[in-house]
Amino acid sequence: MLDPRLKRELAAIIGETFVKDDPQSLVTHSYDGTPMLQSMPDAVVYPESTEQISEMMKALHRYRVPVVSRGSGTNLCGGTVPAQGGVVLVTHRMNRLLEIDTDNLTATVQPGLNTKAFIEQVESLGLFYPPDPSSMAVSTIGGNIAECSGGLRGLKYGTTKDYVIGLTAVLADGRIIRTGGKLMKDVAGYDLTKLLVGSEGTLAIITEAILKLIPRPQAKKTMTAMFRDLNGAAQAVSAIIENRIIPATLEIMDQATIRVVDDYAKLGLPRDMAAILLIEQDGDEAGVERDIGRIAEICREQRADRVEVAATEEEALKLLTARRSAFTALARLKPTTILEDATVPRSRIADMVAEIGRIAAKYNVSICTFGHAGDGNLHPTATTDARDAEEIHRVEQAFEEIFEAAIRLGGTITGEHGVGMVKSPYLEWKVGEAGMDVMRGIKQAFDPYNLLNPGKMFPKQSRKRLVIGHG
Amino acid sequence: MLDPRLKRELAAIIGETFVKDDPQSLVTHSYDGTPMLQSMPDAVVYPESTEQISEMMKALHRYRVPVVSRGSGTNLCGGTVPAQGGVVLVTHRMNRLLEIDTDNLTATVQPGLNTKAFIEQVESLGLFYPPDPSSMAVSTIGGNIAECSGGLRGLKYGTTKDYVIGLTAVLADGRIIRTGGKLMKDVAGYDLTKLLVGSEGTLAIITEAILKLIPRPQAKKTMTAMFRDLNGAAQAVSAIIENRIIPATLEIMDQATIRVVDDYAKLGLPRDMAAILLIEQDGDEAGVERDIGRIAEICREQRADRVEVAATEEEALKLLTARRSAFTALARLKPTTILEDATVPRSRIADMVAEIGRIAAKYNVSICTFGHAGDGNLHPTATTDARDAEEIHRVEQAFEEIFEAAIRLGGTITGEHGVGMVKSPYLEWKVGEAGMDVMRGIKQAFDPYNLLNPGKMFPKQSRKRLVIGHG
Repeated sequence: MLDPRLKRELAAIIGETFVKDDPQSLVTHSYDGTPMLQSMPDAVVYPESTEQISEMMKALHRYRVPVVSRGSGTNLCGGTVPAQGGVVLVTHRMNRLLEIDTDNLTATVQPGLNTKAFIEQVESLGLFYPPDPSSMAVSTIGGNIAECSGGLRGLKYGTTKDYVIGLTAVLADGRIIRTGGKLMKDVAGYDLTKLLVGSEGTLAIITEAILKLIPRPQAKKTMTAMFRDLNGAAQAVSAIIENRIIPATLEIMDQATIRVVDDYAKLGLPRDMAAILLIEQDGDEAGVERDIGRIAEICREQRADRVEVAATEEEALKLLTARRSAFTALARLKPTTILEDATVPRSRIADMVAEIGRIAAKYNVSICTFGHAGDGNLHPTATTDARDAEEIHRVEQAFEEIFEAAIRLGGTITGEHGVGMVKSPYLEWKVGEAGMDVMRGIKQAFDPYNLLNPGKMFPKQSRKRLVIGHG
Repeated sequence: MLDPRLKRELAAIIGETFVKDDPQSLVTHSYDGTPMLQSMPDAVVYPESTEQISEMMKALHRYRVPVVSRGSGTNLCGGTVPAQGGVVLVTHRMNRLLEIDTDNLTATVQPGLNTKAFIEQVESLGLFYPPDPSSMAVSTIGGNIAECSGGLRGLKYGTTKDYVIGLTAVLADGRIIRTGGKLMKDVAGYDLTKLLVGSEGTLAIITEAILKLIPRPQAKKTMTAMFRDLNGAAQAVSAIIENRIIPATLEIMDQATIRVVDDYAKLGLPRDMAAILLIEQDGDEAGVERDIGRIAEICREQRADRVEVAATEEEALKLLTARRSAFTALARLKPTTILEDATVPRSRIADMVAEIGRIAAKYNVSICTFGHAGDGNLHPTATTDARDAEEIHRVEQAFEEIFEAAIRLGGTITGEHGVGMVKSPYLEWKVGEAGMDVMRGIKQAFDPYNLLNPGKMFPKQSRKRLVIGHG
């Protein structure tokens, strides 16, 4: 429970109605998009400005009360679960698109702005903001920045980090920093902007962001290629890139995913295929035509069973819907869905998919795999039941071995979902002991009393590796 | 002078011939590309591997001796002057291109690799590494990473930071960290890769880098537009971007620069013009044609006096040579050339050029301005004489006021040259007191004994601002 004096101070700063500690508010902010994690906060606050957050942080800092900032809580790593109680700071009242500057091609936004609404507004001006996490209909830009969200367009356009060029943030002691600006080049000191992106709320509270926009591509085309052999699909991915073509989207779904998606969305997908590639290219009309034609050719050379280019926007949307509904479709199968995002160099996709299959069989668990083949970012997804402790244990063992395999193949434990609580025991596998020390030092420099999203990223104890890796 | 025992230890690690402390070695490593700065090191070492650097750092750490790592020393901020003596670590023996991976579109390089040689090798494979600092014929990739070098293609393609996706680095205590990988997506912990890029050798010694490559554009076209009115040139820059065209290069030279370059390179440039824009577009043939046509139209709409599209590669090269020779041409005028890189949002270019003119007149100093108009990164360049203390004082006052103006216009004190010794007194103007504290904390976390390039970035005392800015 919050100290009543602190509660009064917070109420004085942001108004009584915006400090909640009724049971319903506490329960609804005790979890996020991650299954099987819950921890009760002591209060939930809804500030409306940088200055209010600054004043609140000064108070929280004096009382040494932790704070977890969050948008819509769609993350899948337990990133916004208030692991050590304290205050959950919700950014939903700070949801304004403050400016689109068409001269400098920047947008200035508040963190609570909905991602999809933002993208649509930007596109209506002939501009483009590429990061498109699957959660974008619900998620906020602030959450995307905190987690460095990726999406389907990462291969060609990069992730959230590539578009954040300036930030306003509140430090643990309540001081306000402003980093970057409407600047395409800025090397004045350490790059705090990029450091804060993906820092998962553990270094500062982001209260405003300047985002880089680019011109909207004039044309787009969508196609699918279906393979009876998973290796063929993986080789097609490599061959496309080796032909110096970078598609805007290059997604893969394995057979298990195809079947589940087809059951759900009734799209008439071919249930006998080992893998489908979903490919989009954008750019100017002629270039798109040429690339899609060449990609189709390459897929056929790699023994694709069927190659289909969407003739209309409706058809394209149908194909995209198949991929975008994978998570939803899988979530209907069993009570608990655990979606991971081990990532490997693109050239190791086939090896990784094979490893996932082997590991799922070894632990007798059901894992469907889909994801962003073009950038090596796979989403092996287990459908299970949180009430079945024995099965959950096997699922956890399987994922542990999947992380191990990703690292062994030159990859990472998380490509776009973040570390949070779920992957913190494995972070050392990727970054090493010295890397952990350096990260702890950075955390300490920003937040000496460990008030900002405590219990994330840094585990009490790292997991021992099962085997000696080559990472 | 180095402790003889330490010298023996270093010699034991890398071989006696690679530890130099003869006067010639010391003098030649006491300065870099920056005018008027010199400080003698105690020794110069030439390691050939990460492991050697790790062992050396352990020894230097024990003796608390500072180390300045450097490539060719082309930087313009005093970044590699051994301000507090100690050891200069030269990376020239670590100059190998270790791998180009055409499947993952990555290159793995040692830090001493020459930038231009690297770019040429990459391009010969149909691939592209965009960062092209003006120093690239001499500079090294390691130096580019340390300073986060930009170049002429920054507007469309970004800077060095956008292409570094993995690093091997040696910490102050000799431990080795490996960050990132051949991965387009990796959110495992804080982004140490981007933090080290542009950290100017103050956080770790970079010993290997994984760089992202992209397909080489198929076609390129070059044009110039000449304006009798500086505002017309600036408005053309804005109008091009507002028309949703991002050229690969969009450079400006003011009248003073035009005249000096023409004297030097005898290109027959029009000496009566207030400004020249040099514009390049790349991409596929049709797109390039269309963009260049549209840009020419826009420039005419903005009252360009003359618009010339290069018909041949030789002509294009001639135009590009004009811009690339600006620094060399200016350097011939007077004994001392001070090239700065105040940067503003693109929309404030005209204001900034006007401010530079006003300030140069006020202090009665000669400043030519050229630079990367498309990304707001200007290079006001003073031609002066280091022996004339009174004039140098006026030049310094003028630049101080130029930094002030840049910040007031929403810009920064350095777009691509770095902070080093030259701009450290002004860093607080950009990042604020809290920003300085955070950066000092990061430095402390990496390098508690201040052994890595001490005397850079963090000034003994920040300069007081002349006027209260709006930054």
